[in-house]
Parts: sequence; C-alpha cells; structure tokens
Amino acid sequence: MARNTQVAAETAAPPITTILSRFVASHRSRGWTDAVEHEAHRTFYNWLGCAIGAARHEAADAALAAVRMLEPAAQATVLGRTERVDMASAALVNGITSHTFDFDDTHLKTIIHPAGPVASAVLALAEKNGVGGRDVVDALVLGIDVACRIGNVMYPDHYDRGWHITGSTGMLGAAAGCARLLRLDERQTAMALGIAASQPVGLREQFGTMTKPFHPGAAARAGLLSALLAKNGYTASPRALEAPRGFVQVVSDKRAWDEVTDELGERFEISFNTYKPFACGIVVHPTIDACVQLRAQGIVVEQVERIELRVHSLVLELTGKKEPKDGLSAKFSVYHGAAVGLIHGRAGEHEFSDDVVNDPRVVAMRDMVHATVDDSVHEDAALVAATLKDGRRVEVRVDHAIGSMQNPLTDAQLEAKFEALVAPVLGVARSREIAGQWRGLASLADVRALTALCRP
Amino acid sequence: MARNTQVAAETAAPPITTILSRFVASHRSRGWTDAVEHEAHRTFYNWLGCAIGAARHEAADAALAAVRMLEPAAQATVLGRTERVDMASAALVNGITSHTFDFDDTHLKTIIHPAGPVASAVLALAEKNGVGGRDVVDALVLGIDVACRIGNVMYPDHYDRGWHITGSTGMLGAAAGCARLLRLDERQTAMALGIAASQPVGLREQFGTMTKPFHPGAAARAGLLSALLAKNGYTASPRALEAPRGFVQVVSDKRAWDEVTDELGERFEISFNTYKPFACGIVVHPTIDACVQLRAQGIVVEQVERIELRVHSLVLELTGKKEPKDGLSAKFSVYHGAAVGLIHGRAGEHEFSDDVVNDPRVVAMRDMVHATVDDSVHEDAALVAATLKDGRRVEVRVDHAIGSMQNPLTDAQLEAKFEALVAPVLGVARSREIAGQWRGLASLADVRALTALCRP
Repeated sequence: MARNTQVAAETAAPPITTILSRFVASHRSRGWTDAVEHEAHRTFYNWLGCAIGAARHEAADAALAAVRMLEPAAQATVLGRTERVDMASAALVNGITSHTFDFDDTHLKTIIHPAGPVASAVLALAEKNGVGGRDVVDALVLGIDVACRIGNVMYPDHYDRGWHITGSTGMLGAAAGCARLLRLDERQTAMALGIAASQPVGLREQFGTMTKPFHPGAAARAGLLSALLAKNGYTASPRALEAPRGFVQVVSDKRAWDEVTDELGERFEISFNTYKPFACGIVVHPTIDACVQLRAQGIVVEQVERIELRVHSLVLELTGKKEPKDGLSAKFSVYHGAAVGLIHGRAGEHEFSDDVVNDPRVVAMRDMVHATVDDSVHEDAALVAATLKDGRRVEVRVDHAIGSMQNPLTDAQLEAKFEALVAPVLGVARSREIAGQWRGLASLADVRALTALCRP
Repeated sequence: MARNTQVAAETAAPPITTILSRFVASHRSRGWTDAVEHEAHRTFYNWLGCAIGAARHEAADAALAAVRMLEPAAQATVLGRTERVDMASAALVNGITSHTFDFDDTHLKTIIHPAGPVASAVLALAEKNGVGGRDVVDALVLGIDVACRIGNVMYPDHYDRGWHITGSTGMLGAAAGCARLLRLDERQTAMALGIAASQPVGLREQFGTMTKPFHPGAAARAGLLSALLAKNGYTASPRALEAPRGFVQVVSDKRAWDEVTDELGERFEISFNTYKPFACGIVVHPTIDACVQLRAQGIVVEQVERIELRVHSLVLELTGKKEPKDGLSAKFSVYHGAAVGLIHGRAGEHEFSDDVVNDPRVVAMRDMVHATVDDSVHEDAALVAATLKDGRRVEVRVDHAIGSMQNPLTDAQLEAKFEALVAPVLGVARSREIAGQWRGLASLADVRALTALCRP
C-alpha cells in the first residue's frame, strides 16, 4: 500500500506526452530561426560523414551479416556501402556506424548524441518513401528537440544510474521524427511516443564494446517501428512518458518536467549541438587543439625536446595512458593526442589507427610529453609549453577548445572533417560531390538523390 | 565522486553473465526430469493456443500492417494466419498475440509470462532454420530458466518500480533460447545476453493498451536479433548483467544474485509455470472456479435468487466493477466472472466478448451477485454461497483455485482450453490435429511440420 501512496503523490506530472505530441504534429514547417535551420544542416552533415566513415568497420560488417539473415528488402541505403536493406535495418546499421568512431555530435547539456537515433531513422524512412529534404530537416529538428528535452528532464540522474542516455532517449526522438515525416496527427503521434517509451536502449557498462554504438542504432529502429505501428492503429498509453509507472518516473529520480515546456517551439535544443574535431573523448580536445596550434606556428617535431601539459584533473583520470599499444587505447591517452596534434596537425580516426599509434615518430614524441594537473585550468582549457632543442620555449593557451559551444567548428572545418571521414570510403571526388550539396538539404526534392551518392 | 564510491562497493556481484552463458551453452540436451520435460510441452502448447487464438485481434492486424511496410521475406509463420514474415517480425507478432488475451502462462514467483518472449523467438528461428523439436524444447527450458532466474534476482523491486517484468527480462530469455538453438559457444552466448541486456522492454503504465502485449513481442524480437548479432561476431560487455552500470543494478535495487546460481541445472524455473483456466486477472479465478463447480452440481440459473461471494480484499480493489459495459471492463468485474461461471461453466475469451457481457441473462445474473471482503479468505481462495428460490442454500469453498501451483490445470483441461482458443480460428478439425501432436513436440524431425498446421 505504501506504493500506492507514492504513486498518488506523483500524479502531479504535467501531460508531457500530449504536449510533445501536439508540438511535433502541429509546429509549422521551418518554424525557427535561420541559425537553427543552419545548425540542423550542420548536424545532419556531421552525422552523415561519421556514418559513411565507419561503413567498413567490423561492427558494421557484423551487424549487416545479422541483418542479412532476415533477407531484408532493398528499401534504404546502408550509408557508405553497396547494400540496401529494409528501412528498419538501415536505421539500425546507420545508427551504429554514426557512433562507432565516437566522432558524432554532442548535446553538451545532456551528453546525448542526438543525430544517431533521430537522423538514422528519419533518413531511412524518407528514402523508402521518396520524401523531400524539407520534411527531413523538419523531422530532424523536432525529433532532436523531443529527445534532448526529455534528456534535460532526467539528466544527470538518469545517466548516473547507468543508462546510456543517447539510446535511452533516442527512441523517443526517432519516433517523433518519423511520426512527423509520416504526418501522423496528434493522437497518433502520442501513440508513437508511447510505444517508443517502452523501449529504452542502452547501458553504460557496454562502453568499449560494439554494443555502445548499437544503442543509437537500436533506438533509431525502435522509434521508426513505433511510428509505423502508430500509423497502423497500434495503441499505447497517452501518458506513457509522465505517468507514475511511465517512462520518466521508472528510469529517473530527477524529473524536471519544466524542461519540456520551457520555451517549447521557441528555443530549439539542436542549437546546443556541437561537433567533435577530434576522434576521441572530449577531455583531450583542449590539449590536441593547443598542439595543432603549435604546429601551425611553425614548430616542427625535430626541434622539440619536451612538451609540458597543464590540464584539468579529469584529463589524467580518464586519459592518463602513457604508452598506448593500439588505436582503441590511444583514445584514452592525452600523450598520444598531443603527439599526433604536433606531428599530423589533426586527430581524426586515422590518427587513432594501430599503424599511427605504433609509428616510431609518434612513440618518440609521446615520450617527450609530460602532463601535470593544474587546478586553475578548466575542463575545456589547456596550457601547452614546448621546450625546443635550441633552448626556446613556446606556449599556447586554449581557453575553450575547438568544437565547444564557445568555439564551434566552422563550416570549413566541418567540411574538412567530412572529407577526412568520407574520402577513404567513397573517394575524394564523391566526397566533394556530397559536400557540395550539404547546404541544400532542405531544398532537395527527393532525398534519394542524396542517398544514391552515399553508395560506392 | 560519491558515485564512484558506490560503484566500488557494488562490484562484489558474481559473474552471472558468464555463469548463465556457460549453463545455456553446455547444459546437456534434455538434462532434466520427465516432469520438467512434460511441463515444457505444456508451456509450449498453452502458448501456441493463446497465440493462434488472438491471431485475428486488431492488435495483430495493426502490428502486421506495420511489419508489412518493411516488405518482409516469408521466413516464418504468423501463427493462426496465412502470412509469413521474416523471423524477427514473426517473433514480434507471435509474442504480441500470445499475450493479447492475458491468457498465457504465469511464473507465479515473479508474475513473468515467460513463454511469450522465449517461445516466440525460438519457434520463429527454428522454423526458418528447419530445426527439430528436441532443440526447440531444450531452448525453451533454458531460455525460460534464464528469464525467470533474472526475474527472481530482481522481483519485486523491479516490478514495483514500474517495469513490466515479462518484457524486461524476456529479451534475456529469448536471447538465451536462440543462442542455444544456434549452438553458440559460451563466449558468443555471453555476447548475445550482453546485447540483449541493453534492450529491456516494458512499462506497467501500458497495461490496458496494445503496448502491453507488445512487450513480450518486442522482447522476443530483441533477443532473437541479439543472438544473430552475436553469431556474426558482434560484441558486448561480458559483465553486462552484473556490472555496476549493467542491467540488474540499473533497473533494480533488489539484487538477490544467489537466485542465479541456486540449484542451477538441477531446479528448473519452468517447473513453477502455471496456466490460466480463465481469460482474466488471476484474483477472480477462485470465484469463477467456485461458480463453475456450483453449475456442475446441477444448480441452474433459473433457480438462483442470490449469490454471495466472500473474497480477499484485493479482489474488490482490482475487480470490483459491478456493471461492466464491454469485454475489456468485464475482465475487471468479479461479478461478471461469477455470472459466466454459473451460466456458461467457463470464462474463456468468448465469455469476455461484448456480446456476452451485454446478454440480458448475464446482466441479470450479475445483479444477483453480492461480494464481501473476508479477511480469513486467502488470495487464492473463495467462498461462494447460492441462495435458491426454493429456499435452499448451496455453498462451495475453493481453497486453491484451478490453475494455481497447488491445483494445476490437467492435461485434459489444457486441451479443452486449446480447442476453445484455436477452433474459432483454424476450425475444430485442424485444432484437434495440432492437439493430437502436442506431446510429441520433442520428437518432431522438423518444426515446420507443426508451423504449417498453424496457418489456415
């Protein structure tokens, strides 16, 4: 009976399933500022590059081999590959590849990677139905708003509890985006969100395994199927998100309901999306940024005797690996990040390959890097000092690493990132052909013109 | 930092992912008593009848309409229908139909309905691969053992928190069963369980909607796909179930780890499975049982002046609806249960149809039924007294309702239940043809001989 008392006390939750469904079903097309519209294009383009870039990863091979056992119809493109599969499986595989390199977008308020679940579901459905780009951008903005607002309601408790919040809110964003794309009405959209609410995906214990990128993929598939079910009359609770035994209260003790309604339709969470310049954990980024700047100032490896880093304590706690032996462990080495920043001037997926990690020049440079915790250095900052063989000392101070909200990647930097990811898979010419169109996504008459370019 | 301390304190959990994987991969075929083997056949047969019985329900229609949008390959049977779909979608739809009437099996220790997720996944995969019945029974027993043991670890906290435990443990049972059927080794089985662990399905808020039966269906599909992924080299954490940010600790505060290892391979949880004789919530069953017995004693409706029920307090709390207006609300009326027990001598899905609920004879009989809470009456018991027009008074006392562990359905009663469910869908002759084979499941050379009979 104690349970019932608690349940009664909690029924004050506002009807967020209804509120969000109405918003998704009825907000006007392109009902936001030019800045939001541009950010949506950046989000989509960054996501597309990440998905194509990891198309040949062994996780993609394994996932596709499993999907092939279902003998899927050729409805939608597996980005960066020749295969076409049913749209639900395409959503799954593209969601996996987009997160495989840990190089996708980040909504820093919640550390949700929102494009993985939402764009993967929306593009697969749009391709199957031959939908235009305007509808895709609308679905992306609204779907991401739903996922990130629910994330805001529950973060950090939900994440601290062990949920991988990208997959455990992503099915809602994917369902919302697909519901919009299918032009479901408010009631059907509520059913889609309700069905999706029963399917959160993702445990943080999976970090370091292929099941981490599986989370956004499975969330994309779950959201897409929820929308298809709702379209065909399947029912769910219209209070699935907020009820005492509904989603939020079951998976989080923090329930900041206002995060759903606060400036809904005026402030869009996609505005707070960021894009990583480097293919590793975000705490290493200020150091790499500083080392890339040193190199840009003309410092060459042969001149260097010693590199000193002054960093936030989290940097050594999370990425203090001095002698990484392979690409995966190098992602947890601030020493490696500094070394490739200086030697290569970048830290894309290639710079975390086993070959680069074991390159004698890189090994030698890592040995010259020394790191110290400095309590005056913010998480987003780094101080790097190079001592040269001629006795000179050169310092670079980064206050806000490139890729942060305060210092976002420029469009040109996003384009460079895209080409570094896509050219090895589709070739430089095709990569540039896709890149030449990214600002025009919303005006595409049929997204199949784009997806066709994403197959080799 | 407080979080890290807590995490450190919890690492004492035993390696249950490994323990269960070894068990599933290596326990010998038919490594249990004849009683367990027989219960497995009863479980499968009861599940099959429920799935076929609900084949034409609107939930099945809606789910199939959504699945058809994926243009699925014809790999596996939708039980009770002509359609064949890919095996993952078949697992989904058969899982839905098996739970649609709330008439499926119950593991009373956890109120898990284990066959829905496990049998739906196992049979679809077995049909696709043309597997024999022996392997299916082995997969069913082992898969149900995994789901119910994990349920024992977490029940009741996990359920109280709002999870629909059938779907939120079912993906593990389905993954285990499919891993066994695919003959995955211990390591691959651990990966299958790990991938499945990230995909719990089900919120209790969905009760009363089509998303309730969606839970076992989606769990079946998730478990099947997890096994296919693992077979193809997909990886997950080998501590996905027990780690501090793994499944059990994320979704439950109760963590009775011993429930996994206690008599593992000796005691089988399928032994504790029960089958409902009546198509409604279990608290009404003692009353219906008593009324059916009154009718069997020769009491006919026209003689009756008044029926008095003495029942446990939960009965009126959960099923106190005096004047139900349709089939769904009649499931929450102990008065209706008593009326159809007396008039029809049974309470299958038909007796909860709108027609029967509004039949004037039934309406009149409900009016004659009066219920009182009696603290001396156990949840599993009921006292029913009929006062007849000639002044006689006839009493029936039920101590353990039919269908309980103490008073299980006989095989003959299961056969009658099966026919009541299946004959309206496939006809009496076909129903009896299937029923004539149920004891021989394990000796079937190829389960496709059975699934072919399950299509009209």
